[in-house]
Amino acid sequence: MFAMKSDLGFVAVAAILSLLLGIFIGQRTSSSSSSKLPEAAHLRVKRCDSQGGYEVEERSQLQKLVEDRWESEQHLNKDILDLINTTNLRNNLKELSSRPILAGTERDNELARMIQQRFVESGFDSSELVPYDVLLSYPNQSNPNLITIHDGSDKVVFTSRFKEEVLHKDDGDPEFIHSYAAYSPPGDIKTKPGTGLIYVNYATIEDFDKLEELGIDVAGHLVIARFGKIFRGNKVTIAQERNATGIILFSDPNDVAATGTSPADVYPNSFWIPGSGMQRGTTYDGLGDPLTPGWPSTRDAYRLDEKDVVLPKIPCQPIGYDDAREILKKLGGPSPSRRVEGMVLKKSVTTLGPQLLDEFRDHSIRLQSHNSLRITKSYNVIGTIKGEVEPDRYVLYGNHRDAWGYGSIDPSSGTAEMLEVARVFGELKKKGWRPRRTMVFCSWGAEEFGLMGSTEWVEDHVNKLQDRSVAYINTDGCVSGPNLQVAASPLMWDPIKKITKLVPGVSDGETVYDEWAADFALQNKSQPVIGTLSASSDHTGFMFYCGIPSLDRHFGFDTSKYDIDIYPSYHTGYETFYLVDKFLDPNYRILQGCGRMSALLLKYFSDSAVIPYSLSKMAETIEENLVRLKANGVGERLVQIYNKFPVLEEAVTNFTQSINKFVKRIEQTKDTMGPMLLRAVNDQMMKLEQTFILPPGLPGRPLERHAIFAPSLYDAYGTSAFPGISDLLFRINTSKDKVKKEQRKETLRRHISDVTIVLQRAARFLEDFQFI
Amino acid sequence: MFAMKSDLGFVAVAAILSLLLGIFIGQRTSSSSSSKLPEAAHLRVKRCDSQGGYEVEERSQLQKLVEDRWESEQHLNKDILDLINTTNLRNNLKELSSRPILAGTERDNELARMIQQRFVESGFDSSELVPYDVLLSYPNQSNPNLITIHDGSDKVVFTSRFKEEVLHKDDGDPEFIHSYAAYSPPGDIKTKPGTGLIYVNYATIEDFDKLEELGIDVAGHLVIARFGKIFRGNKVTIAQERNATGIILFSDPNDVAATGTSPADVYPNSFWIPGSGMQRGTTYDGLGDPLTPGWPSTRDAYRLDEKDVVLPKIPCQPIGYDDAREILKKLGGPSPSRRVEGMVLKKSVTTLGPQLLDEFRDHSIRLQSHNSLRITKSYNVIGTIKGEVEPDRYVLYGNHRDAWGYGSIDPSSGTAEMLEVARVFGELKKKGWRPRRTMVFCSWGAEEFGLMGSTEWVEDHVNKLQDRSVAYINTDGCVSGPNLQVAASPLMWDPIKKITKLVPGVSDGETVYDEWAADFALQNKSQPVIGTLSASSDHTGFMFYCGIPSLDRHFGFDTSKYDIDIYPSYHTGYETFYLVDKFLDPNYRILQGCGRMSALLLKYFSDSAVIPYSLSKMAETIEENLVRLKANGVGERLVQIYNKFPVLEEAVTNFTQSINKFVKRIEQTKDTMGPMLLRAVNDQMMKLEQTFILPPGLPGRPLERHAIFAPSLYDAYGTSAFPGISDLLFRINTSKDKVKKEQRKETLRRHISDVTIVLQRAARFLEDFQFI
Repeated sequence: MFAMKSDLGFVAVAAILSLLLGIFIGQRTSSSSSSKLPEAAHLRVKRCDSQGGYEVEERSQLQKLVEDRWESEQHLNKDILDLINTTNLRNNLKELSSRPILAGTERDNELARMIQQRFVESGFDSSELVPYDVLLSYPNQSNPNLITIHDGSDKVVFTSRFKEEVLHKDDGDPEFIHSYAAYSPPGDIKTKPGTGLIYVNYATIEDFDKLEELGIDVAGHLVIARFGKIFRGNKVTIAQERNATGIILFSDPNDVAATGTSPADVYPNSFWIPGSGMQRGTTYDGLGDPLTPGWPSTRDAYRLDEKDVVLPKIPCQPIGYDDAREILKKLGGPSPSRRVEGMVLKKSVTTLGPQLLDEFRDHSIRLQSHNSLRITKSYNVIGTIKGEVEPDRYVLYGNHRDAWGYGSIDPSSGTAEMLEVARVFGELKKKGWRPRRTMVFCSWGAEEFGLMGSTEWVEDHVNKLQDRSVAYINTDGCVSGPNLQVAASPLMWDPIKKITKLVPGVSDGETVYDEWAADFALQNKSQPVIGTLSASSDHTGFMFYCGIPSLDRHFGFDTSKYDIDIYPSYHTGYETFYLVDKFLDPNYRILQGCGRMSALLLKYFSDSAVIPYSLSKMAETIEENLVRLKANGVGERLVQIYNKFPVLEEAVTNFTQSINKFVKRIEQTKDTMGPMLLRAVNDQMMKLEQTFILPPGLPGRPLERHAIFAPSLYDAYGTSAFPGISDLLFRINTSKDKVKKEQRKETLRRHISDVTIVLQRAARFLEDFQFI
Repeated sequence: MFAMKSDLGFVAVAAILSLLLGIFIGQRTSSSSSSKLPEAAHLRVKRCDSQGGYEVEERSQLQKLVEDRWESEQHLNKDILDLINTTNLRNNLKELSSRPILAGTERDNELARMIQQRFVESGFDSSELVPYDVLLSYPNQSNPNLITIHDGSDKVVFTSRFKEEVLHKDDGDPEFIHSYAAYSPPGDIKTKPGTGLIYVNYATIEDFDKLEELGIDVAGHLVIARFGKIFRGNKVTIAQERNATGIILFSDPNDVAATGTSPADVYPNSFWIPGSGMQRGTTYDGLGDPLTPGWPSTRDAYRLDEKDVVLPKIPCQPIGYDDAREILKKLGGPSPSRRVEGMVLKKSVTTLGPQLLDEFRDHSIRLQSHNSLRITKSYNVIGTIKGEVEPDRYVLYGNHRDAWGYGSIDPSSGTAEMLEVARVFGELKKKGWRPRRTMVFCSWGAEEFGLMGSTEWVEDHVNKLQDRSVAYINTDGCVSGPNLQVAASPLMWDPIKKITKLVPGVSDGETVYDEWAADFALQNKSQPVIGTLSASSDHTGFMFYCGIPSLDRHFGFDTSKYDIDIYPSYHTGYETFYLVDKFLDPNYRILQGCGRMSALLLKYFSDSAVIPYSLSKMAETIEENLVRLKANGVGERLVQIYNKFPVLEEAVTNFTQSINKFVKRIEQTKDTMGPMLLRAVNDQMMKLEQTFILPPGLPGRPLERHAIFAPSLYDAYGTSAFPGISDLLFRINTSKDKVKKEQRKETLRRHISDVTIVLQRAARFLEDFQFI
């Protein structure tokens, strides 16, 4: 019956095959008739330019399952570059940053609904609002947090600002939130007359140690520090551990007004900021809702009692540099004579505090904070474009929505591009295209308070996400300058390089890659350097709780010109649409570059048949980090502490060999894999990073479970390889308590063993390629 | 080109298709030429009875991916039934039980090598010895554990036996291990003259409470209890918690010699045992090597210090009923006048101890134990037959190898069938057949000591197993009588029923199902009842640590005839080949039934296109268990303790709805799924049970992580639904410590929330069928 030779027979065979296919393949897309969807035919040329024979359809049904659409639809990739439109991007940004977007406020919820609607309009298959009830912290708008200076008769001789001076129509919203440090407790700290505060530089451990060395004990004192170097939450924690009573944080002009503080030098005349700009931000250094660590903050969730929650215990208040100067002056602070009125205090810190200058000997300084905690509904928006071949494989793309102010950079430059990317894929979809795998677009709520929205969602869906996620692409503030900066799982290092080579340059380079490489060439690097991830944004839950390969990137300020940690207007009232529109990206080419990168990255991971992870980079990075860990005699110390440390080194070597073998086999078989084997190989790679997850978490860090890469324990903005080992080694020899020291060593031995096991498992996880 | 109408054209099309297939499918099996493998053609008729046209091959390449081989190879299922051979089974059993197989001994290792070799001979794709170095416990063979009675002048007037009387050539091995309770510490306890020991019945919590009620305090006393009702390890723990100094355990003739204790009534004349039969066994109630809880005992593994390990602290020694009678007599124990000299003491327990009868008032009783711990290499044997379509999906089939003695029942009846099943599948494979999914055969080491081999292997491979396992089928002692008993994840309840309907009866029924149903008909049940799993065997790690659907079954003694907990020779020196060969299964039909069931179950899960889980049973069982949990006012109490308990009930309802919807959709689309969707649906089902896993484990039980079903906390042989809730509720009101009571309630509230979240996740886990 199947081998008939007549024309009639052939038709019969074809008809039977068609029938059989109806049975085996289930719902067939309507694309089999190219006349109905001419544009789809263009877009899906490989599958649709047939003359209508059943064999073609038959062949294409099988081919569809293994087809590398990324390769076969190169023209589509080019179309996408063209479709990302600067006018749309500008309009999106303008709308998003027209008013402040504090998490949990009506404006935030309104934007959530707007984004949901935009996904619907883009033709997404689903678009949902997903609320969580999370513990947020707000200041009292009718009773602002203040720092005051009182004279001998308790008269207030100085009062700090509690919001920025209005300098442009874009920063004049009457509902703008007062300056505060979220999760800083309420408090009223007043120093004894004559005793001012102690300047503690960046409030790092090293700074406090230096003070201790100099005989200055901060215990019982109010301290003042500048922003920078480490996450502000860690500054509070460290000050608290040293028994300070409160901490004032100020923006150093050297960081935020590096070319001068006169009105002509700063906003609204440049992207530097004036003296009233205040950096708001969270001081909570956990992940997600502190009341529900490890589980989702659904309406009915069990919640810890607030008293059992680890939140800052001493009040903290951020101020601008004008006010900081007033306060520091009383301590003999920096003179105003320098061209740049930086407050970088190169003199020994002893020169500042705690005693006020003689002329202020009867003065006292007072910090009043009136923040309060509130369980608040915060929405995520989740939109999907279902995959055609593997609907149960997710490529996720997320960006938070909330801001401390207008958020034109952080996060709305990212939201603006996400909306445009959604529109572009929606357009393709309307023409009949679908990705191979499902694309998931996420607008996260309450990121600024501690990655609330993304963390709760991850905790809610952990199994599904671990089972089905191919990659998570994060975008936060995407444009704060022209220089590309990327941090990612090493599995995504090659892909991002590949994509940047396809995206036209955003300034004078031919491609983004060329510009990126040029930036690094200035630092004498032969190619761009990509870092591993910190806990700085919503990738944290995906990467460090789930082990899902993640990437975060943005265009930042020009690091060759300015030695600053972050763009000047960060979290202040001057992060406005005007700022971006006028100074940072007036022709929206950088934002266009962002959108183009996101779109192509998404398509690359969604449509490649073999998931394009850079496996070798993972092995190389671990090898390099092991060398770095062992440097300066640490390797020998580790062997002294645990004589089986070499087994870990051996495991790293085995892992590398296993990766190399696997990569070679993929190369050899890539083009000949059937659909099931393709899926099996992809599953194996997709789950590789998860083999690094320690279910109970790193020692003392239950929500950070990645044994190989993790945020730095002493700076949530930093990153660390072999994080548990580094943390446990940190100052192990300075501990004076013998019992504690021995316990720490024991924990270290056990953790080294855990990391060894994880690496051994990872190596074996790939070894079963023999099965395939 | 693809729609040519001439004969020539058709041939060209066929040739091109063939070429394309070469590209897409990769390695093709040689089955495309049926002349080379006539037997393969028979076995794979659906794919190979063509007239050689390429279209057929084309069709079959796609069909192969979705084909339900279980259905299409019905004749093979019948062949398998015929191939399981009673002579082979007898020979296997004879060889395995010819000598004692204590874990870690040379004979155990020899058998491991033998089994590995048998897998090789069966044509398996791999067959490996996988060692772990685990902490085992052994008695001193030159200084046996003894119970002695001393008279007033300290003369020994009674000494207990330390091994069984040799009664048949099959139980005469000179290397037979002395009687001991593994992990019982060394100790030498002597009672004060006149103070004997206290009889504590089964040493359950209820028994000790009853004693307390009667004013009898066991603290400071040696106690004696009979085996039965609960796991011996729990008896030791409970006695220890009540501050007993040691515990003697004896076999009650009512359980092991129910028809009489005269030589004619017992072994070697029946399957009942004589008075010197002693039940060895472990008293450690953890899972896996106590030195490496949660990670594998590889050679270089980090190990806890022995002093930090929770092992029994009071000595325990098992004795036979002859010796027990001697001891109890001194306490006024049971008279020998009854027909069956049972030691079931229906009289109040107060009548026994601690005071010895008047005539023994100057006597004392002494327990000497000389066990020691030793880190010992124990081997697993892992053999695989790779799947043809989904090599990365595993159906696992495991059985332990070690025994306390000759192990003819436990475990060698299981090992004998496994070897035969391996041979049968090996034969099919030699004829060209391969399963759809990979079959993994496991011979576990050191199960008897605390599930060492399987637990360490699971800990070593947890990611791979959780990602890839479809089901785990356990066989332990498979034949100790004629009555089938099954415990399993509800996902496997329908499958096992289906399989038993295909297997011919082992006694007088047409099928095993008929016989099984007849057993339950005697208990007025309309159909066989399947239980959920306990921690009794090697399924424990798979089911409760990983969440892999598991099944355990055996043919046990006739429960309608005998009210006993376990077969009489269990763990004694009389569990010999002779016992099985002569009394239990002389024609090996029961063992054949075991092998047939295992083989068909393996094939059913390996070869069905849609994995044949009984999803609805999972929902129904959870619903039923919720009702059971709430009964007797417990529901109201739970609401009082936690007003969100109803949210859990709602979650159960949603889970059921979600299951029902999913099942309906599978029914509707089953026959039309393409290969990728089939895989996606299977993945979804396969991972469902894993959504019940709480990564940190049940409260206080880090290695038992299944939130819905788990071994009972107070009896490792028992099973419990909503185990965390039951455990935390257990006697909550009798606690006198208010703070502890409130803490327990708080833990309960949080755990109820965890279970709720897990159920909500599970419901949502299935909801994305919309994606498919």
